Amino acid sequence: MLDKPDNLTVTELMAELGRKARAAAGPLAIASAERKHAALIGMAEALLRRKDLILNANVLDVAAAEAAGTAASFIDRLKLDETRIRAMADGIRAIAALRDPVGEIMTEWDRPNGLHIERVRTPLGVIGVIYESRPNVTADAGALCLKAGNAVILRGGSDSAHSSREIHAALAEGLKAAGLPEAAIQMVPVTDRAAVGEMLKGLNGAIDVIVPRGGKSLVSRVQEEARVPVFAHLEGLCHIYVDASADLEMAKAITLNAKMRRTGICGATETLLVDREVAKTHLVPVLDTLAKAGCVIRGDAEVCTLYPQAEPATAEDWATEYLDAIISVALVDGIDGALQHINRYSSHHTEAVIAEDSAVVERFFNEIDSAILLHNASTQFADGGEFGMGAEIGIATGKMHARGPVGVEQLTSFKYRVRGNGQTRV
Amino acid sequence: MLDKPDNLTVTELMAELGRKARAAAGPLAIASAERKHAALIGMAEALLRRKDLILNANVLDVAAAEAAGTAASFIDRLKLDETRIRAMADGIRAIAALRDPVGEIMTEWDRPNGLHIERVRTPLGVIGVIYESRPNVTADAGALCLKAGNAVILRGGSDSAHSSREIHAALAEGLKAAGLPEAAIQMVPVTDRAAVGEMLKGLNGAIDVIVPRGGKSLVSRVQEEARVPVFAHLEGLCHIYVDASADLEMAKAITLNAKMRRTGICGATETLLVDREVAKTHLVPVLDTLAKAGCVIRGDAEVCTLYPQAEPATAEDWATEYLDAIISVALVDGIDGALQHINRYSSHHTEAVIAEDSAVVERFFNEIDSAILLHNASTQFADGGEFGMGAEIGIATGKMHARGPVGVEQLTSFKYRVRGNGQTRV
Repeated sequence: MLDKPDNLTVTELMAELGRKARAAAGPLAIASAERKHAALIGMAEALLRRKDLILNANVLDVAAAEAAGTAASFIDRLKLDETRIRAMADGIRAIAALRDPVGEIMTEWDRPNGLHIERVRTPLGVIGVIYESRPNVTADAGALCLKAGNAVILRGGSDSAHSSREIHAALAEGLKAAGLPEAAIQMVPVTDRAAVGEMLKGLNGAIDVIVPRGGKSLVSRVQEEARVPVFAHLEGLCHIYVDASADLEMAKAITLNAKMRRTGICGATETLLVDREVAKTHLVPVLDTLAKAGCVIRGDAEVCTLYPQAEPATAEDWATEYLDAIISVALVDGIDGALQHINRYSSHHTEAVIAEDSAVVERFFNEIDSAILLHNASTQFADGGEFGMGAEIGIATGKMHARGPVGVEQLTSFKYRVRGNGQTRV
Repeated sequence: MLDKPDNLTVTELMAELGRKARAAAGPLAIASAERKHAALIGMAEALLRRKDLILNANVLDVAAAEAAGTAASFIDRLKLDETRIRAMADGIRAIAALRDPVGEIMTEWDRPNGLHIERVRTPLGVIGVIYESRPNVTADAGALCLKAGNAVILRGGSDSAHSSREIHAALAEGLKAAGLPEAAIQMVPVTDRAAVGEMLKGLNGAIDVIVPRGGKSLVSRVQEEARVPVFAHLEGLCHIYVDASADLEMAKAITLNAKMRRTGICGATETLLVDREVAKTHLVPVLDTLAKAGCVIRGDAEVCTLYPQAEPATAEDWATEYLDAIISVALVDGIDGALQHINRYSSHHTEAVIAEDSAVVERFFNEIDSAILLHNASTQFADGGEFGMGAEIGIATGKMHARGPVGVEQLTSFKYRVRGNGQTRV
């Protein structure tokens, strides 16, 4: 556990962090692409150079977690080794290699009076990132925010405090060597929960947006309490709809991948809907493929009749994000039935349709309001890297500003530059 | 004054409006461009056909305002005549003629694995518009939200309640004739202030964004209390900086237009900064031009020495949006002094630089974080119509989602459509 300086309350300490971040945001917004690139490369090098310090700090965190009897899956997320540190450094290098978004002309046009208008990307300002046990978020989030010209205040979980502090020291080294303000990436130095509350209030206007990274309880607290905008998804209750026109082999392969490739990620499918018209031909082969891979099937009454190995689903199942090797399965009346089910239960994250009938695909694309809709592809593609964004800080299901994968472009705002030669308004 | 149905509390009534709006948003989001166009044309026609009803209702509002001893300027904003009704109808026709934004592919790209990704515009959902005495906002805001496929809940000022109710009836006629849900455009039927409070809380998640239209006290209440995103500007404290490289005639013409064309709009200039290097040549001619047009000059000590007709400015003047024929004037040390002053006092709305030196212009464009920056053009161009957006619901100074003029595109969100042919994730 880290302690706050004796002479400051948590409120004062956090307000000071906010002021420093806001002060750093000015020079950061006009820092050249080259300088930011140099800082990022410097961070990656510092992470490798300081790896023993980081691993030693991580030993303390892991020992504390083990002593507290924490679950093995949690300790796995917490634990660092050389490979993971190298992966962090590589991740930062990948971010460094992205095109710098700041100053990019998004669109431009001329007016009849001769004015030339440009819409230009600018940094958002100050990002607050609140996360849990994964120490690598310190590096990922710090680097991504910097690439977009933003200052960031990182508040990691207390379980990974020692590791995060050492990772942060490496980031600070990269900033310093490149001549960028060290306050560009600040770590909250206390593990007090009140610090999170202060961030959610926005630190007197210093924070422009909050990004929570973690489980549902963290995200729901952030969404409920935050007085500043939040980029987040509460859950990823993703659906696959297998239409009567679907290719059976494709339905098997995609459903298997979407459910079982990794069950714990937000893009994993949780509910399978099968067109009643092809229940006799498509349902059993798809469910057999899943069951063979170790997936538990929970079906509605008809599914249980056609596939007796299935457990009966309760009403709650349709609203449950398992994040586990379990799938809920229902028969529906074609695309209308699928739309009805999905629009009722969707978390507005990601849904896929497997179909050869293009009219069905267009209705699926038009009539569902989720961040990501896929045709004949796995829901596990819901990821900034897979979208070609290079890296993501998360996936957002809100409709304001950022939606879907939140990459470096989504961490920017814009302004208008208007060039004239003496125009006055009539 | 309108009354609420006896059997409902304001909270229940507003929740019901929210449910209806949310229910209407579904069909609206997939309504064809043709149907929305037909509804808008129908609204414009209904406004003209029902003009006597509207004018009669307006007589009641004006009489009540006069009886209450309301200021003449307020009554002018409230009063309707045939010309103003025709202007409203023309405004709706102009919105109808805009390109439909919904379904537009904003950007698209291919991935190495063959996935084709499209980012497509979608409606935001439900917009809440809170405004004051101008009854024409009912028509403008209703039409603009509809064009973008959004449902809207309109809460007009109690002073214009009769007029707005009749205007709304014309809009409803247009919706009905085109077969769109009448709840696409709802008016809050009560003038109770508590109804605004309910809207600011978001009506149980039914409202996606609030747009306040009115004076500073309304906007600041909305910004402080709203638990949903807000598109707004609190004030437009716009600056002009006249650089040493400025063309003097241009400086005179632009400053005159920017300050005096209309003094009451948010894009009117409030502060003039003149490069100390050209104080002797540029200051007096520019100030004379303003003074001759009836503008009061409030200058810093040096300005008052060089231009004795000026009143001395107090510290408060630099932070004041006059919205009147008054300008505050200071000498600054070149572009550095201008940036320092503007970044301290700017409301992040609109600022203009008058200069021939392109290095000065680029620094002005890069180092000021306002929604709109102009070079050699009047700040009064800060307007959606002047930007070629067709119509605007307001100007936003926030950095999230919408910034600058809020037109039909800014009232949309987006989703990703991903087309595959059987891709699974590695």
